[in-house]
Amino acid sequence: SKKFTSENRAKKFGDCPICWDELGKNPLASTKCGHAFCIECIEKSLTVEKKCPTCRRVLLGKSSYHPLYLNL
Amino acid sequence: SKKFTSENRAKKFGDCPICWDELGKNPLASTKCGHAFCIECIEKSLTVEKKCPTCRRVLLGKSSYHPLYLNL
Ligand SMILES: [Zn+2]
Ligand SMILES: [Zn+2]
Ligand SMILES: [Zn+2]
Ligand SMILES: [Zn+2]
Repeated sequence: SKKFTSENRAKKFGDCPICWDELGKNPLASTKCGHAFCIECIEKSLTVEKKCPTCRRVLLGKSSYHPLYLNL
Repeated sequence: SKKFTSENRAKKFGDCPICWDELGKNPLASTKCGHAFCIECIEKSLTVEKKCPTCRRVLLGKSSYHPLYLNL
């Protein structure tokens, strides 16, 4: 059976595109366009530019992202 | 180093609370309250009751959930 080492896991689930920490290491958020980041990272990013760092969709206001409760 | 078998993986990331398939086996959605389901499951569920199956928050309209793009 296939085994997942912690290195494979990091590859599989990916990193936060802002800080490059493994997704799930820090509290998560999803944008309403469905892209995931550390919540601290997306909050800081949206103070600088009101777009999704992944897909560039315009993201205005508090309803444009939310905490995401996954056990990654 | 710790290994993750596919069984451990299923336990770790959990199942869709509606159909009990492993989360990520089917296309995913997140509610705006941050809870994850198969997108088909949450869409069907919201036609029956306009609440999050996990936290019971009232969920009205298309903006209450969105596709979630994670490589689970
Ligand atoms: Zn981050
Ligand atoms: Zn996006
Ligand atoms: Zn499901
Ligand atoms: Zn919920």
